[in-house]
Amino acid sequence: LNILAFDFGGTQARCCLARGGTIGADVRVLQRRADDGGRDWLKRLLSEGRALTADLTPDAVAVSFGGPVLAGGRVISMHVKGWEDVELTQEMSEAFGVPVFIENDANCGALGEYHGGAGAGCRFMAYFTVSTGIGGGVILDGKLFRGAHGMAAEFGHMVLDALPDAPQYAAGKRGVLEALASGPAIAREGKVALALAGKPVPETLTAKHVFEHARAGESWAKAVLDVAIGHLARGVAAVICAYDLERVVIGGGVALAGDDLFIPLRQKVKAYLPPMLEGKAAIVPAMHGDFAPLLGAIAIALESRDD
Amino acid sequence: LNILAFDFGGTQARCCLARGGTIGADVRVLQRRADDGGRDWLKRLLSEGRALTADLTPDAVAVSFGGPVLAGGRVISMHVKGWEDVELTQEMSEAFGVPVFIENDANCGALGEYHGGAGAGCRFMAYFTVSTGIGGGVILDGKLFRGAHGMAAEFGHMVLDALPDAPQYAAGKRGVLEALASGPAIAREGKVALALAGKPVPETLTAKHVFEHARAGESWAKAVLDVAIGHLARGVAAVICAYDLERVVIGGGVALAGDDLFIPLRQKVKAYLPPMLEGKAAIVPAMHGDFAPLLGAIAIALESRDD
Repeated sequence: LNILAFDFGGTQARCCLARGGTIGADVRVLQRRADDGGRDWLKRLLSEGRALTADLTPDAVAVSFGGPVLAGGRVISMHVKGWEDVELTQEMSEAFGVPVFIENDANCGALGEYHGGAGAGCRFMAYFTVSTGIGGGVILDGKLFRGAHGMAAEFGHMVLDALPDAPQYAAGKRGVLEALASGPAIAREGKVALALAGKPVPETLTAKHVFEHARAGESWAKAVLDVAIGHLARGVAAVICAYDLERVVIGGGVALAGDDLFIPLRQKVKAYLPPMLEGKAAIVPAMHGDFAPLLGAIAIALESRDD
Repeated sequence: LNILAFDFGGTQARCCLARGGTIGADVRVLQRRADDGGRDWLKRLLSEGRALTADLTPDAVAVSFGGPVLAGGRVISMHVKGWEDVELTQEMSEAFGVPVFIENDANCGALGEYHGGAGAGCRFMAYFTVSTGIGGGVILDGKLFRGAHGMAAEFGHMVLDALPDAPQYAAGKRGVLEALASGPAIAREGKVALALAGKPVPETLTAKHVFEHARAGESWAKAVLDVAIGHLARGVAAVICAYDLERVVIGGGVALAGDDLFIPLRQKVKAYLPPMLEGKAAIVPAMHGDFAPLLGAIAIALESRDD
């Protein structure tokens, strides 16, 4: 089976023709230009897809989308203007004339890791992607779990800080996990900590920088990470309490910190779990990196064709 | 089918013979004596069961147990001494010579409400029992969800307060939902609030009293409930974020407060949910009260006989 697969993010997209259902070497990566509206961005992706399928008709189109996917394939992006409510399934269907499968990127990432990635060999798995935001996906008894309205596993929206001055982002409520432990949250707290310590605050500070400063022994950076990883650990522990899992896979840019993230994270999750759940779920880094959503979308198309 | 059903709690137990799978008028309620060890308590229940089945052999025994149930039917009670690790399935099987079905009481409660109770007519439901502790059960796509090791839906153990001085109980970690919003937690905060307000602190104060004082307009009681219901709301909202449900059923003694609990709870849950999940899950009081676990245990036995 040949599947034309897309992974739409807010600033970047990937596109490939998976021949025989596997990703080849020719994954195209596109950067959105600052002046691309939603329509322009979609047009560029469609034209890239047409170029990839110039010499054959794909059997299906598989789409990972970086935002909520509603029934019927309508999509909502909070990041791209003019993309508020696009009938993506219909657009793709008209463009390529084949069945279209669409799922949000965190669910696709979970499936991508489950199939031959860090979730291989287990039946109950949660996937956290920790980068600009925090997304989630869940595999229950070997299958993607979507919930009653396709909105399950919104881990980034769990409110874990009830204090009235808890941090808040535009898209979420005050004190949600995403505002406490995402990349931008770590960077924000890093700047606050530097200012409080009377040190110069660089204009650009990322979570990666904070991890580097902590590795170099700087106490302000260690303290920031201790708090942020503590919040992430409470989120992971809450998800384990809810689902009783075998494995929790953590991906996204923040997970690239490796042991500097995973060693304290595992300790803290253990400290937050009740005795009967301690040690039941292994906490492991994702294996497929940025390709997990694309792989998951392809897996959905392959599974649906099998049915 | 005739099913002998037990509901074992720490201080109270129920026992009935469900003829044709339905509960009759003759549910026996037993109170544990302070000097009953685990063995004595079990013996009294077995003897009650034998009396109920003196004139017929039941088709199955169904047990709701107030503590974790491990694979193979071993049970753990944190409340009854001498009951740390009892092979309850084996004991029951030897006593009655018929198949034994055993499940923890929160899971049984969820099933009891799902079958003809407050969860009737939906497919995705969570059940919170808020009383001495906080337990949970989940129905996904019409079936009890047990998780990878039978430990799913431990909602009372989610850590929702990360402050170093968060309240803690013996059985759980610091800042867990059970320590923030259970009956004893509300009573404890009520006493603190009375003391802080310079008022006399009665020796016995229960969550029910705090609700009564709030209804009478006393500000210390209103403030205590505002905080506790806020914590419960964050727990409910986190569970909705995890599962994406149609309904959340709240039972247990604290839920008997009715609108005084449910009206503010619904408002707060809404305030803690992300826009795409607002209003998706109805939050409703349990209908079967103390009988939900017994009904759920009977439902498990009936379902298993159908397979």
